[in-house]
Amino acid sequence: MDAKQIAGEKAAEYVKDEMVVGLGTGSTVYWTIVKLGQLVKNGLKMKGVPTSTKTEELARSLGIPLIDINNAKKIDLAIDGADEVDAEFNLIKGGGGALLREKMIASLAERFLVVVDETKCVKTLGSFPLPVEIVPFGWQMTRNRIDGLGCESKLRTAGRAPYITDNGNFILDCGFDEIHDANGLNLELNRIPGVVENGLFVNMTDAIVIGRNRGKVEECLFCRERIQSSTHTK
Amino acid sequence: MDAKQIAGEKAAEYVKDEMVVGLGTGSTVYWTIVKLGQLVKNGLKMKGVPTSTKTEELARSLGIPLIDINNAKKIDLAIDGADEVDAEFNLIKGGGGALLREKMIASLAERFLVVVDETKCVKTLGSFPLPVEIVPFGWQMTRNRIDGLGCESKLRTAGRAPYITDNGNFILDCGFDEIHDANGLNLELNRIPGVVENGLFVNMTDAIVIGRNRGKVEECLFCRERIQSSTHTK
Repeated sequence: MDAKQIAGEKAAEYVKDEMVVGLGTGSTVYWTIVKLGQLVKNGLKMKGVPTSTKTEELARSLGIPLIDINNAKKIDLAIDGADEVDAEFNLIKGGGGALLREKMIASLAERFLVVVDETKCVKTLGSFPLPVEIVPFGWQMTRNRIDGLGCESKLRTAGRAPYITDNGNFILDCGFDEIHDANGLNLELNRIPGVVENGLFVNMTDAIVIGRNRGKVEECLFCRERIQSSTHTK
Repeated sequence: MDAKQIAGEKAAEYVKDEMVVGLGTGSTVYWTIVKLGQLVKNGLKMKGVPTSTKTEELARSLGIPLIDINNAKKIDLAIDGADEVDAEFNLIKGGGGALLREKMIASLAERFLVVVDETKCVKTLGSFPLPVEIVPFGWQMTRNRIDGLGCESKLRTAGRAPYITDNGNFILDCGFDEIHDANGLNLELNRIPGVVENGLFVNMTDAIVIGRNRGKVEECLFCRERIQSSTHTK
């Protein structure tokens, strides 16, 4: 069983009866959703709030009951992957293009669980280009301002046209190399008119499940305390 | 000549040859644009960057040369109205629904000139409900979070449907009554995922032209120094 699968399946154990659960998007949380489908078949009572149409379709095909975000009185738990995780559990997300909905749901959730394989763990964020969602109007001016913060950005494309998010916006992939003040950069980016949201998730993660090679999985729980490191060799 | 017209026309005097000028939207800056049309006919060489399709059409009909924001190497001056102006020259804008483009252009401009009639001047911002542009996805959750900052918000409508901005988003009109920390609120709002931009313009205004009754116009120039107060009775 590979690192993504074992971590993804482990994360499903955090879901309890009656929970409303934000369902992320990506190749690791895919395994969480598949596992939740099995648990629902076995009687788990939960409702999912998907972060993308892809996840919505997957969850629906597995029989997981879904509700619209606007009808969720609260979200008990959100589970999602990440493109990078640092030692403070700050994240870069958005490689898949769904950063805005993912960030909305993670920030609304009472607890946010991140599930990754060990290749995503870094000392300093920034090797993975930071995705920033921007409005199409005046996008080149917005890019100039973002580049002025110390990066080189590229407009994400789909074929020869700009990639368009679920919200009708563009994405810039911003090469900062090393992000030493994630909180400051998050605020700086969001105060630029034209920036809708960025892929920095700062002080949002409550727990993390890391899949390691050879069937090991490590869980680092709330408040940045590492309370358990278990081995599951299957 | 009423207060809006005299102030609007006065503002046109700030435009010099070769300038690229952000052109705002509204009933006061309307008179600026009309005046600029006359000046262009008389030989003024300028280019306009419109903040709305309405302004674009007006400027075009008057023969003012326009350029796309993405093709403007810089914007020398932006001129726009406001819904409220306080003693620190902080603004509430967005009553007309174009706050994002207006804020982009004002923040890109080297200088930002505000033109209002005296009824817009207030001691404390907030009697005018603050417009906040939000993404449609999960908008009720976003509204809950904004209301948690101490306001009562209403979704702006057009007939029975939500009003849609030029960028495909919704607008909440947020009744805060009194905004005592405009800078803090601006940052708080923009850090909420789902908020695209808000109508607080903080520390952006370089100069203001206030039209008063009986043909008086007051100019308060850069750096919050009141250097001139002139009377034009026509």
